Amino acid sequence: MENLAYYDGKVGTVDEVTIPFNDRSHFFGDGVYEATMGANGVPYLVEDHLDRFYSSARALGIVIPSGKDELKQLLFDLLAKVDGDTHFVYWQVTRGVAMRDHVYGSDMEGKLWVLIRPQALGSIRTPVNVTVTEDKRFEYGHVKTLNLLPAVLYSQMAHDRDACETILHRNGVVTECSHSNVSILKDGVFYSHPNDEHILRGIAKTHMIQACYRLGIPVIERAFTLDQLFDADEIMISSSSKFCLPVRSIDGQAVAGRDPENLNALQDELIREFRDYTGSNALD
Amino acid sequence: MENLAYYDGKVGTVDEVTIPFNDRSHFFGDGVYEATMGANGVPYLVEDHLDRFYSSARALGIVIPSGKDELKQLLFDLLAKVDGDTHFVYWQVTRGVAMRDHVYGSDMEGKLWVLIRPQALGSIRTPVNVTVTEDKRFEYGHVKTLNLLPAVLYSQMAHDRDACETILHRNGVVTECSHSNVSILKDGVFYSHPNDEHILRGIAKTHMIQACYRLGIPVIERAFTLDQLFDADEIMISSSSKFCLPVRSIDGQAVAGRDPENLNALQDELIREFRDYTGSNALD
Repeated sequence: MENLAYYDGKVGTVDEVTIPFNDRSHFFGDGVYEATMGANGVPYLVEDHLDRFYSSARALGIVIPSGKDELKQLLFDLLAKVDGDTHFVYWQVTRGVAMRDHVYGSDMEGKLWVLIRPQALGSIRTPVNVTVTEDKRFEYGHVKTLNLLPAVLYSQMAHDRDACETILHRNGVVTECSHSNVSILKDGVFYSHPNDEHILRGIAKTHMIQACYRLGIPVIERAFTLDQLFDADEIMISSSSKFCLPVRSIDGQAVAGRDPENLNALQDELIREFRDYTGSNALD
Repeated sequence: MENLAYYDGKVGTVDEVTIPFNDRSHFFGDGVYEATMGANGVPYLVEDHLDRFYSSARALGIVIPSGKDELKQLLFDLLAKVDGDTHFVYWQVTRGVAMRDHVYGSDMEGKLWVLIRPQALGSIRTPVNVTVTEDKRFEYGHVKTLNLLPAVLYSQMAHDRDACETILHRNGVVTECSHSNVSILKDGVFYSHPNDEHILRGIAKTHMIQACYRLGIPVIERAFTLDQLFDADEIMISSSSKFCLPVRSIDGQAVAGRDPENLNALQDELIREFRDYTGSNALD
């Protein structure tokens, strides 16, 4: 198949599968999601993503209609149906189908959705530009919800400014990006925002930190300011599709690029982990 | 018809109409909405709601696929198809249908949705109970978006506490409720939160304020604290379906009920305005 849509047991292309009018995603964005890259028929770090998926659903009282192992198998099975070598693998659960009412029934069973499409994996060595703006999102940043309008606005802002991402700050303290985490290296130390309600606990970030541990790079999970961002030796944007992209300019101002040794070691380690997990050489 | 669903030109019941998999509501909650009550075939204050609808869409760069007059006529036409005397009349626009991508195309045309169902109008004289919690929502409160997960959580909280609504505060300053505004009377003066990015400019609140002007009740649009809330002579919850409900307890503590004269005058005026606009006596 050229792409795949799944909803509550139905499978087809994105043009074939339709959704009941009263799915609660339509009126409330009432659901949570996960996304990762597939390579060689393997959804990358799928166990980590499933753990976070079930945590997000639990935080909102949404019932996922299958167990973790069953869902993992479903993702492998669906991924095998789609043409291509590397893929965007996305899934979500919405609270259910019911007449519009803010209050939900205690007996609602969630609806499972999957979207899979071919997607190329680029090089993570190419530096990117970013922009910066104020973080006006809600304080449920740790739950990976479908309430993504601010993420849409900040992504569009980056696009309009020829940037790869928008770095967000609350009162001068950097939180994360529109749909990525941001971390820095300074004097050989890796700094990243702690996992509180203002950021999503990135799987890519988590694995970057674990790579630092293996490499002997000290890790401090502490929020940094905009001043510290501009003064960093390296700035890395991380997500499940971007892995670890180095930043070289913020709104046109040259930044970072001053600790290539640790950056390259970190990227080598992430590429090695991806190859070991998927058996694919697509990431470089 | 027992109820009506409309999507992009298709009309049916909520069980008949389905939505394309790639509508951006599914992945981002990327849309804005309005809701009002219908009575006697008339959507109440529809011009006010349409003005706000187009403002919300404009704030997010969403293109509504028809003009205000055309949409108004559509709402009247669709309302006429549904059984019953009084109705819940809801409509929304989503940014469009496209493969999932945070960044949206500049050429996207929005998709229009309508939901209409019979809904009884109750008495606005019966006092209600409410609960209170911290306002953790985003700073786009002035835009009536589909990103309603916090509203769902706060509504469910009220439901679980046998309350009608959850009053929200930021650092002790009252903003609004999960899907209503809240205003108070104190020493004969009407106080309500100014229309900034922390609240939705309620149509019902706006008309309550206009009623105050006609009645000679002074209006101060200034945020009030939780202490001032508990000390108020009257507390009113307002929305397009609740109109103006008096609050008599907050988390079990008796409050308000000390200025029935102004409260009754205000409610009389709102009921009169509803009767004049719709020709219906359903509100009392």
